[in-house]
Amino acid sequence: MGMVEDQQYVYPSVNMEQCKSRVAVPPPQPFLKSLQGSLKETFFPDDPLRQFKNQPRSRKVILGLQYFFPFLEWAPKYSLEFLKSDLIAGVTIASLAIPQGISYAKLANLPPVLGLYSSLVPPLVYAMMGSSRDLAVGTVAVASLLTGSMLSTVVNPTKDPKLFLHLAFTATLVAGVFQTSLGLLRLGFIVDFLSHAAIVGFMGGAATVVCLQQLKGIFGLTHFTQSTDLIDVMHSVFSQEHQWRWESVVLGCCFLFFLLLTRLFSKRKPKLFWISAMAPLTSVILGSLLVYLTHAEKHGIQVIGYLKKGINPPSFGDFVFVSPYFPVALKTGIITGVIAMAEGIAVGRSFAMFKNYNIDGNKEMIAFGMMNIFGSCTSCYLTTGPFSRSAVNYNAGCKTAVSNIVMSVAVMITLLFLTPLFYYTPLVVLSSIIISAMLGLIDYEAAIHLLKIDKFDFIVCMSAYIGVVFGSVETGLVVAVAFSVLRLLLFVARPRTFVMGNVPNSISYRSIDQYPAAQTVPGILILEIGAPIFFANATYLRDRILRWIDEEYDRLKSSGETNLYYVILDMSAVGSIDTSGINMFEELKKIMDRRDLKLVLANPGGEVMKKLQRSKVVELLGEEWIHLTVGEAVGACRYMLHTFKPKSTPKSMGDQLETCNNV
Amino acid sequence: MGMVEDQQYVYPSVNMEQCKSRVAVPPPQPFLKSLQGSLKETFFPDDPLRQFKNQPRSRKVILGLQYFFPFLEWAPKYSLEFLKSDLIAGVTIASLAIPQGISYAKLANLPPVLGLYSSLVPPLVYAMMGSSRDLAVGTVAVASLLTGSMLSTVVNPTKDPKLFLHLAFTATLVAGVFQTSLGLLRLGFIVDFLSHAAIVGFMGGAATVVCLQQLKGIFGLTHFTQSTDLIDVMHSVFSQEHQWRWESVVLGCCFLFFLLLTRLFSKRKPKLFWISAMAPLTSVILGSLLVYLTHAEKHGIQVIGYLKKGINPPSFGDFVFVSPYFPVALKTGIITGVIAMAEGIAVGRSFAMFKNYNIDGNKEMIAFGMMNIFGSCTSCYLTTGPFSRSAVNYNAGCKTAVSNIVMSVAVMITLLFLTPLFYYTPLVVLSSIIISAMLGLIDYEAAIHLLKIDKFDFIVCMSAYIGVVFGSVETGLVVAVAFSVLRLLLFVARPRTFVMGNVPNSISYRSIDQYPAAQTVPGILILEIGAPIFFANATYLRDRILRWIDEEYDRLKSSGETNLYYVILDMSAVGSIDTSGINMFEELKKIMDRRDLKLVLANPGGEVMKKLQRSKVVELLGEEWIHLTVGEAVGACRYMLHTFKPKSTPKSMGDQLETCNNV
Repeated sequence: MGMVEDQQYVYPSVNMEQCKSRVAVPPPQPFLKSLQGSLKETFFPDDPLRQFKNQPRSRKVILGLQYFFPFLEWAPKYSLEFLKSDLIAGVTIASLAIPQGISYAKLANLPPVLGLYSSLVPPLVYAMMGSSRDLAVGTVAVASLLTGSMLSTVVNPTKDPKLFLHLAFTATLVAGVFQTSLGLLRLGFIVDFLSHAAIVGFMGGAATVVCLQQLKGIFGLTHFTQSTDLIDVMHSVFSQEHQWRWESVVLGCCFLFFLLLTRLFSKRKPKLFWISAMAPLTSVILGSLLVYLTHAEKHGIQVIGYLKKGINPPSFGDFVFVSPYFPVALKTGIITGVIAMAEGIAVGRSFAMFKNYNIDGNKEMIAFGMMNIFGSCTSCYLTTGPFSRSAVNYNAGCKTAVSNIVMSVAVMITLLFLTPLFYYTPLVVLSSIIISAMLGLIDYEAAIHLLKIDKFDFIVCMSAYIGVVFGSVETGLVVAVAFSVLRLLLFVARPRTFVMGNVPNSISYRSIDQYPAAQTVPGILILEIGAPIFFANATYLRDRILRWIDEEYDRLKSSGETNLYYVILDMSAVGSIDTSGINMFEELKKIMDRRDLKLVLANPGGEVMKKLQRSKVVELLGEEWIHLTVGEAVGACRYMLHTFKPKSTPKSMGDQLETCNNV
Repeated sequence: MGMVEDQQYVYPSVNMEQCKSRVAVPPPQPFLKSLQGSLKETFFPDDPLRQFKNQPRSRKVILGLQYFFPFLEWAPKYSLEFLKSDLIAGVTIASLAIPQGISYAKLANLPPVLGLYSSLVPPLVYAMMGSSRDLAVGTVAVASLLTGSMLSTVVNPTKDPKLFLHLAFTATLVAGVFQTSLGLLRLGFIVDFLSHAAIVGFMGGAATVVCLQQLKGIFGLTHFTQSTDLIDVMHSVFSQEHQWRWESVVLGCCFLFFLLLTRLFSKRKPKLFWISAMAPLTSVILGSLLVYLTHAEKHGIQVIGYLKKGINPPSFGDFVFVSPYFPVALKTGIITGVIAMAEGIAVGRSFAMFKNYNIDGNKEMIAFGMMNIFGSCTSCYLTTGPFSRSAVNYNAGCKTAVSNIVMSVAVMITLLFLTPLFYYTPLVVLSSIIISAMLGLIDYEAAIHLLKIDKFDFIVCMSAYIGVVFGSVETGLVVAVAFSVLRLLLFVARPRTFVMGNVPNSISYRSIDQYPAAQTVPGILILEIGAPIFFANATYLRDRILRWIDEEYDRLKSSGETNLYYVILDMSAVGSIDTSGINMFEELKKIMDRRDLKLVLANPGGEVMKKLQRSKVVELLGEEWIHLTVGEAVGACRYMLHTFKPKSTPKSMGDQLETCNNV
């Protein structure tokens, strides 16, 4: 333990008040007030009630209504010019919503018409309750796939389609209730625990899995595996080589090529975004015409077939609340609800940022939740704000949520009059539409960016991807969340500590890792603690600080420099401390005393000072050994070394000593 | 969104290099080296291999052997004087170990002789492999109770005692293997995630529950509930009023009074520790004599009865690896293993601190694990280093682990020759011994201390206590861990941010919450970010910073002061950042640009600078807007405000402007 014998240096206790600014303890706050403060920061960080302050009662009622129904805010100011823009945007997203809706419903093993139903009611609800001006409501591929695969574990969608449908409504209801509750309880921040890296990996993996599922449509297969992992799907495709339909493959590849070409084109010239927006509908029309003219449905090209005419039938009598079905619906609803919500909020926020307005995540959750609750009662399944459709909406110049109403009306007209036109639409075209949409979600550039900036984030991302592709979508989600939280816990458990030195030509002290030119001070070890101290890292920090001291002794021994007398801990980065952290300081002080080292603190923050004082650690350390800055702490230590020379002061040290007044 | 119109102030781009010290980016490190560094900090924070460096090969072999068998280190230096001390300490702890061992075995629904077996083999293993000089090995009450109650869920200990016994051995083996693996994988830090507050509450609750169980012995009941919660136990006691034996109650209360009195006495005069250490054995002898002389065993006083003579029979053929028993043994082993390990390591560490030597937690885990593996093969159940026994060992002046060997020999002699003497030992005495030991574990003073210093820690503590007492020991454990981790996550998700001002008579800038006298700078908002930035808090921090800005606008509007032009973020406490955090800065910059605010950073740390540079955020912000200190940043902003006056500079501001050279 490197106890150096000649180090018996008795620390004089002198009043050094003249040398230092006092480190303040923040004024005491009544417990209830500080509790209120923490609760507010936790649940109302964006202070949504700020605008209600100092308002007359009638105004408060209006503001309250506007809070839950944002359309009341913009509707009175709505102009004809806005309507023109919203009409164009609405028609554009409708042309995308119809083929996508049908495709995604197929992905969820649900009747294709459900995709249209789901683009009718939820957008209307969102138009009233949502606060984003750019979000276009609709179903999403990943949640659809997940709904399909999770519900298939208890009900076979081909054998008992009705029960399967009812389970899907139940799962949607659960998702809606769950989203609304989270919003009302202001627990929206749990979505933040899905890290960006995890989402990139998870979405990429899910997109890959969705594309793999489309091989069924592309190859015109009638039997296909129920699992979603790469190996099962590949086995399913390549074990049925004799079933492959070349007509289907050719048609699929042509349309995929067409769709990707229009995407590329629109990417190059963003003004022509409508070309790629219209491409899916064009593909559907072309495909249907082709099949109609060539009677390809009799030559191995599967078609959608009969779509029921008429708008959404009610479905609130269809919910299934009995075991063993309900538990699965519950699980499905919660998982898909969280994923859909995370996507919707992220999309809403990013477009809000472009246009410089604000989105309240918790309020959005309530809107999504209500939209799914209403949806589940009117034959819709899970909807959210998909990125692709919202981007088209934004590019098409939408002004308000009216574009969603326009889309809804367009879908209604389709449902009332145009469903027979989809009879001949080939399934392979829908597969091409899904694949072309999904390829955009595999964000390999983001993954490379992660690799460059943060290796651990890249590992999180790749684990989520591999989890989804080789395991299942749920596995991937669990892996993603687990790795994200593990990273967080590891970071908390192993904070950085640095040796600090004086930055040349300045009075600042900084880590010598970052500023290699910074000069350490003889006889004094200055350490920076890089994170809040609490139970998860208190033991580690104590051990690590002692190791720094041991290493410093080793270094001094080998270089024959001056001895070590003071250890200054820079507490600037210690934003908080708990009782385990306080205990750590008590222990550290004891150990240091036994080693004849003086423990000095620099710049403890308000909360830390409060707790150090309450627990009497300030008295234990001596108030005169707690300084406002590292510079002052060093000054005080040097002054002490100079004035009260330790028994054995090596010569090399003398000329470096200065009084603290010099600093 | 408070956009102020008159704020269209174009920021000039000037070379201000003369005004500032450059913020350094740490020199790049090869990926493998930095990975190695992180892995070392994570798994080898105490650098156990440091002593191996620069040593010849033969020395390395010896050091390696000494690492795993610490007795090789101290055995050669062992002296007669040490032996004298260890002999006294060993005999003292043996006198405690024998009655406690028998009592705790009863608590685990195991044959009493198992308590003696468990004080024979494990201490020998620990003497060779353990690194603590003060730890006394033995069984513990909480783990015993937990073993008893958890295993009772699959096997009835009265109906099938043999299977129950074999399950206990299996659980011990599992615990041993688990502990050893954790130690070998250097994952010992998971123990740190049990916070101090959680442990206080959990141990207090467990002690309460153990005391409650003793009501069976005190009241001389033969039937008793299998559950451990307060309500069930109370119901069990008070529904059998007619079964109460007053002889038993009187005897129990007398011995309890005697034991508590000796404890109090020893507490007052620490030199007389041996009085309380000997009290349990004295009670056993007195109690047995009393029963023998009065034939009280025929008047309702239950006695231990026949104890098998002879040392530990082998038990490695008894393990049960079949369902449904093994899963329960697995769960029991892991849970009791973690709890026992946590106690043992904490005890070892605290005594090591008193005597100023070092304990490697991971190495200790290997020692505990091996001791349980060997124990499970020789008819022992779970052992660790109990606090009470180790404290007696320490107070009795033990020098090395030889005191454990002495205890082991004393227990062996007891097993070989003295077991018949325990025939008449009344169970009620054992109950008194347990209660008196447990009362010391209910650390209400620590709970009050928590209440004073940290309210949230107190809540964690009380939740754990209530969970154990009203639910079960497992419930309490889960509650304790869940609350601890929840606190941690909440803390991470909601870091503090502060407005900073200039501390009078200094060049330092500090939070105005902590230093109410600190003065804010007109036209500049200085914010301190109190924690690392990553996915869990990036969104919150962005919202919170924008809210600070909005609030500042509101304040300025109402007071008619100068406008806001600069926002300085003090990054001193941001020890780390991930890609979500980087994205946050990009977003913040965009939003600020749109509001005609300039974003300025002060003192970003090494890792943060590295990532900001790699992701080109340094370029985005402009390198000249990243400063070494808040003071320099303020200086630069003031200089800019002074030199390039914004269109509408309120008069009040002019006289406060200074060039940065002045600071």
